[in-house]
Amino acid sequence: MIPITPLNAKSIEFIQAKIDNKTKPVGALGALEPLALQLALITDQRHQKSSDFNRSGFSHSNLKSSGQISINNPAMLVFAGDHGINDNNVSIAPSAVTKQMVLNFLQGGAAINCFCQSNVIALTVVDCGILQPISTDEVPQISDGVMNNVTFIEQRLGAGTNDFSVESAMSITQVEQGFDYARQLINTQIDQGAEILLLGEMGIANTSSAAALMSALTLFSVPECVGRGTGITDEQLEKKITLIESALQRVKVSENNFENLTQDEVISLLSELGGFEIVQMVSAILSAATASIPVVIDGFIVSVAALVAQRLDKNVANYLIFSHVSQENAHQILLEELISAQTFNESSSQPLLNLGLRLGEGTGAALALPLIKASASFYNNMASFESAGVTV
Amino acid sequence: MIPITPLNAKSIEFIQAKIDNKTKPVGALGALEPLALQLALITDQRHQKSSDFNRSGFSHSNLKSSGQISINNPAMLVFAGDHGINDNNVSIAPSAVTKQMVLNFLQGGAAINCFCQSNVIALTVVDCGILQPISTDEVPQISDGVMNNVTFIEQRLGAGTNDFSVESAMSITQVEQGFDYARQLINTQIDQGAEILLLGEMGIANTSSAAALMSALTLFSVPECVGRGTGITDEQLEKKITLIESALQRVKVSENNFENLTQDEVISLLSELGGFEIVQMVSAILSAATASIPVVIDGFIVSVAALVAQRLDKNVANYLIFSHVSQENAHQILLEELISAQTFNESSSQPLLNLGLRLGEGTGAALALPLIKASASFYNNMASFESAGVTV
Repeated sequence: MIPITPLNAKSIEFIQAKIDNKTKPVGALGALEPLALQLALITDQRHQKSSDFNRSGFSHSNLKSSGQISINNPAMLVFAGDHGINDNNVSIAPSAVTKQMVLNFLQGGAAINCFCQSNVIALTVVDCGILQPISTDEVPQISDGVMNNVTFIEQRLGAGTNDFSVESAMSITQVEQGFDYARQLINTQIDQGAEILLLGEMGIANTSSAAALMSALTLFSVPECVGRGTGITDEQLEKKITLIESALQRVKVSENNFENLTQDEVISLLSELGGFEIVQMVSAILSAATASIPVVIDGFIVSVAALVAQRLDKNVANYLIFSHVSQENAHQILLEELISAQTFNESSSQPLLNLGLRLGEGTGAALALPLIKASASFYNNMASFESAGVTV
Repeated sequence: MIPITPLNAKSIEFIQAKIDNKTKPVGALGALEPLALQLALITDQRHQKSSDFNRSGFSHSNLKSSGQISINNPAMLVFAGDHGINDNNVSIAPSAVTKQMVLNFLQGGAAINCFCQSNVIALTVVDCGILQPISTDEVPQISDGVMNNVTFIEQRLGAGTNDFSVESAMSITQVEQGFDYARQLINTQIDQGAEILLLGEMGIANTSSAAALMSALTLFSVPECVGRGTGITDEQLEKKITLIESALQRVKVSENNFENLTQDEVISLLSELGGFEIVQMVSAILSAATASIPVVIDGFIVSVAALVAQRLDKNVANYLIFSHVSQENAHQILLEELISAQTFNESSSQPLLNLGLRLGEGTGAALALPLIKASASFYNNMASFESAGVTV
């Protein structure tokens, strides 16, 4: 894996002074101010890279940092996959619903379609391994890959994972294949002009995989990492905990060294506890951060992918924007863990929304994008005290 | 005043069933679901009125309710005014800054300009009585009323209010003039197609007027209603409280009958404790609700205007959308009071954002608009379980 470049701490003072000199009391725009700092640092980093690239003689173009935040062409990627553990009835729905919802995405009828349209976000749905692939019989227009403003991409790692409560969810080879798929996808998105990426997911029972990975990679116990997903019963919750605990016994997770795991150990945990869509999101996050592209994190599942990515490269956290805190129990403590890994800002960032969402699909990320654009807008366009002649 | 029509409670069941049958677990869109219910009820009410109007023979058009939420052409109105009480140095800034910020609005350089542009909101700035009017020398383009995508309107009630700690802020005649001005302005906005209004304000020291009105109209004491505005010292805070308490002694506010005040008594309090921009916002809120147009409430000052409006007509609360809870101490308890007056929804609505904003100008309202549009979008466009073939 290519190491992620740390943000350039030398630019912080200059950027913060620019924010503080806008025509408003210092700090009056609350959470939008550290967000602007983060976006400006990331854009600066990206332009710096282009500049280095140019100086090394590979290109004759003359890209230079304008000092402005640039987050054009936002792209939402929704990763879908099925989970063998759902044979044990740990979700409100059968696994067949994953495919039904993917078809709903392709027909433009889901919440994420509405929110992407409302907030002008390009939407791509990725089949990472749902039980049955989508056939052209089901979606006749599928052959050209784009329908109802949705791009559909197949990057299948299998027909659902194995039941991780009794065996490895997938092989190491499948993880590596997933990493390759997602890296290529992200590079294509960036080549097509995306300057900010938003991630979402769909996969019945994927909170089980996510909770297992969170518990394996943090100090938190399984019951602390497990929630009701979209709304299971007490009995199902109990069973979900038991199954995850037995999986963690099988893979012999030590409670003490989670912060010092080698990359191979993290990859191994990912193959054991799995989730085809989680694997591809981990790689998507790493690939975007490597290219100095900010990534908007959705709910619990995407946040767990971010945690795995952070355990693989500690510099990833500064490239993450946390869109919302969901109703899933463990999401809040997980976000605190991830935010504490950010280093650009003393007064730490915060999730932008707290609307009681518990849907996934990338809905929280899509809903937060206008706040991110507003943050860029005040940074780029607002007058300074001098330019406006305001004497406070 | 024309009484505000209560929302049609008979439509609630139908609308809620439509929301619950969208392709998502019940309640999974959190705060956006009661918001969709509210917007659908208000749109329904508005279409019902048009229909009644048509039946009564005044028009030949054949408007009928489509069952869809309609919130086209959002319009932000920022009301500005100066405050005599600032002679006592109760703000971080001299009153001259009000005008400097109005000029900043007209030059397109303030936060509210950025957020209105970012979220496609038409912006109108209203001079309700700043110390010195804007002259054509200062803004040469002002003669045609529109510049930098901002419309400027003069509806001056005076050159700043009197110092309400020692005398009435304004006369009853001025209040009535302000009500007329704002009613005409709102009706013009609606005639031009606005289906949702957003309110903001600018006025150095206007948190003093707002805190005085809040204390006069609720059970909360002056210290509970007073905050640091954009950032005053302990000493200034102390003085602010003393001045407001002496004003409330002068106007003989009783702690016991605030919910049963007559309209004349409320109008009298408004003239005593004042704020030219607050007076016009009270009327704007009432006028919009009378026309069944939802009003997006910004921070503490606009929320106090909403409180005054609610004391004048209890049906106004259902037409209000609370965009955010600010850092001003009293805002949260005031919002609880206003939300508890809403009757359309058992699980009560909530402010949409909590970003630590403390700027005013309508910034919170502008930032919340995309969430409101997203709510309308899922209600209008999302598939039902039947139509999508999802079997949960």
